Amino acid sequence: MTQAGNRTTESMDTPSSQVRPVAPPRMRRRRDSFWAVIPAGGSGTRLWPLSRAQRPKFLLPLLGNRSLLQQTADRLSPLADPTRTMVVCGPAHAASIARQLPSVPEGQLIVEPAPRGSLAAIALATALIARQDPDAIVGAFAADHDVADPASLLHAVGTASLAARAGHLVTIGIEPTRPETGYGYIERTDDVIAHDGRAPEPGPGSVAYAAARFHEKPDVERAAEYLATGRYLWNASMFIFAAGTLMANLERYQPTLSAAVQRIAAAWETPDREPVMADVWAGIQSINIDEGIMEPAAADGQVAVVPAEFGWSDVGDWHGLGELIEHDGLGNSVRGDFLQLETRDSVVWSETGRIVALIGMDNVVVVDTEDALLVIDRSRAQDVRKVVDELKAQARHELS
Amino acid sequence: MTQAGNRTTESMDTPSSQVRPVAPPRMRRRRDSFWAVIPAGGSGTRLWPLSRAQRPKFLLPLLGNRSLLQQTADRLSPLADPTRTMVVCGPAHAASIARQLPSVPEGQLIVEPAPRGSLAAIALATALIARQDPDAIVGAFAADHDVADPASLLHAVGTASLAARAGHLVTIGIEPTRPETGYGYIERTDDVIAHDGRAPEPGPGSVAYAAARFHEKPDVERAAEYLATGRYLWNASMFIFAAGTLMANLERYQPTLSAAVQRIAAAWETPDREPVMADVWAGIQSINIDEGIMEPAAADGQVAVVPAEFGWSDVGDWHGLGELIEHDGLGNSVRGDFLQLETRDSVVWSETGRIVALIGMDNVVVVDTEDALLVIDRSRAQDVRKVVDELKAQARHELS
Repeated sequence: MTQAGNRTTESMDTPSSQVRPVAPPRMRRRRDSFWAVIPAGGSGTRLWPLSRAQRPKFLLPLLGNRSLLQQTADRLSPLADPTRTMVVCGPAHAASIARQLPSVPEGQLIVEPAPRGSLAAIALATALIARQDPDAIVGAFAADHDVADPASLLHAVGTASLAARAGHLVTIGIEPTRPETGYGYIERTDDVIAHDGRAPEPGPGSVAYAAARFHEKPDVERAAEYLATGRYLWNASMFIFAAGTLMANLERYQPTLSAAVQRIAAAWETPDREPVMADVWAGIQSINIDEGIMEPAAADGQVAVVPAEFGWSDVGDWHGLGELIEHDGLGNSVRGDFLQLETRDSVVWSETGRIVALIGMDNVVVVDTEDALLVIDRSRAQDVRKVVDELKAQARHELS
Repeated sequence: MTQAGNRTTESMDTPSSQVRPVAPPRMRRRRDSFWAVIPAGGSGTRLWPLSRAQRPKFLLPLLGNRSLLQQTADRLSPLADPTRTMVVCGPAHAASIARQLPSVPEGQLIVEPAPRGSLAAIALATALIARQDPDAIVGAFAADHDVADPASLLHAVGTASLAARAGHLVTIGIEPTRPETGYGYIERTDDVIAHDGRAPEPGPGSVAYAAARFHEKPDVERAAEYLATGRYLWNASMFIFAAGTLMANLERYQPTLSAAVQRIAAAWETPDREPVMADVWAGIQSINIDEGIMEPAAADGQVAVVPAEFGWSDVGDWHGLGELIEHDGLGNSVRGDFLQLETRDSVVWSETGRIVALIGMDNVVVVDTEDALLVIDRSRAQDVRKVVDELKAQARHELS
């Protein structure tokens, strides 16, 4: 990995030009030190039967010709080219990821022996980055989300990097557009931590505020209250920090995990990597980064949040995926050979090449794969995971 | 065909034992002279995508392991064994029918060069039967209907045969159980033409009444009026007549068709069969037996009808087929590997072996075949033919 440390790519210029008022020479060093970490976990059970444990959502080309993982790496490439991109994944997906991202060096595909939550994944990647690039700014981004406006994302990451450089753990919060109950929320203060000096007005992506609290997924009444305040943002699992800041906070809030990660990182470039990883990783307690670090650090005033708008979606279920696909004149989102009579606002996804004919169906989802067919009322999109649970209970592993 | 004329089978005993008061020796001759004619036409477009032009409904094992055609022949076998069974079909289906009914002699599979309606099909078969068995009683039965209680059908046919022997054109009318708008109706009088003397009360299947009129499919108000009278019966396309009676009525009401059929029949056992058939058949005007003979003959007092109950269905569409399949505790009729959450009163038919998962769907039909998938609101079962029409309009012949 070391050969890539000082590499400069053309694509780095765009976002960094928006970051001021840092002086050019220093800025250049900082530009080069941005690393992307992509935790590629979760199978996306709500997108069954397309997604499976062996064919998780991030590996699927749901929105175009490239997979969500590939699109994530593409989107981040102006900030961190493949030589400064790390992917953390499970053993079952390493080969697919290696082939989908051929430019990412093999040493930067970190394979977890077992899932231990997002904090262990991000902390290990950060520890490995810190060993070769102590000044690195690290951005962690989920592998399976969609961003309609990547330039605005990069702008927000630039602003977040300023706050990260100032020693904060930074998150990007999505300006909510509806009282969504499927996402966690970040409550911000009015205290400005950093701002993009080029932007005269404190618009989306231009200001990092001190974060007050992280909130779990709310019920619908509470979500409406959040929306009304104008100070609650969707938690999109985007975290930007200096590598050293994360490691210091890890040691403060999760000392056991910190020691485990440091022990693995110390052995990483030695012949002991495998036995140490096997020995230590199994004992790690699974926790995600929100709960493990961001929430306690926010309470201690260590967290900043950049409110932003860039057409973000977690592509979480068939209803949401349908929203992201172009609609016909009747509101139907279709992939495949489709014929309808009086059918509206439905999602039809066929992988089989078969003709799919619907008559008199409104607000349904039909997903047609080689070995499984799903037909649901669109309002039940969240319940698709229950089908996967049932298949697992029946030990039908090839289908789940 | 002639070798079969006097053949007696064990299975003939059951229905004939119910026919009285005809004397035994004469009865035996009559028993032997019953012939079954099965016009096997129509593709059953409302059962798409299972049924296709090349794979019509009557060839499909929709209700058990045998096709509707095979079940029709099985049901009639106590009256007419395969050597006295004739099937009239189109060129595309002759080979499949020959294999599905291996006991029917090849000479009794009559291939129409082109469809010309049920009257031409039944008349040609009857003319051919009459040439070898002038006293034959002929029963014509659709190839793709279902009968839940075959013994009661045979009882009704026995009663109908008495009226046929007396010179009437006879039909069996189904006692209606609902104000159905999808069937034609037969209006009966109270004039008794014949009755099964063994039955002391004039119950279902025991009495042949003079028929007053044939009625087209009614609207729902009229269907309710029909039901209320107790004298309107569903037209199930079952016709029983002496061969000579049909030929005489054909000559009276359809003299052109009569001449054409007689010309073909005269050439049938000669080297001229093929050229004469090709020459004459093309010029025949397409008409069904109801309109061409039964309606005018009813007006002239020549038609009898036997009201009967034997669980008849025309297996016309997915809603109706669902009614004939056992239901689970939630009213779902299922063929295939099915998993549901909160799904009721639906029909799921899968031919592919795939799992079919439904969530929150009520009153839908899902039909899953190798090259086409249909999902409809169950109330739209009649509109499936529109999909087939659209596929034909798109020249997608392999799918229609």
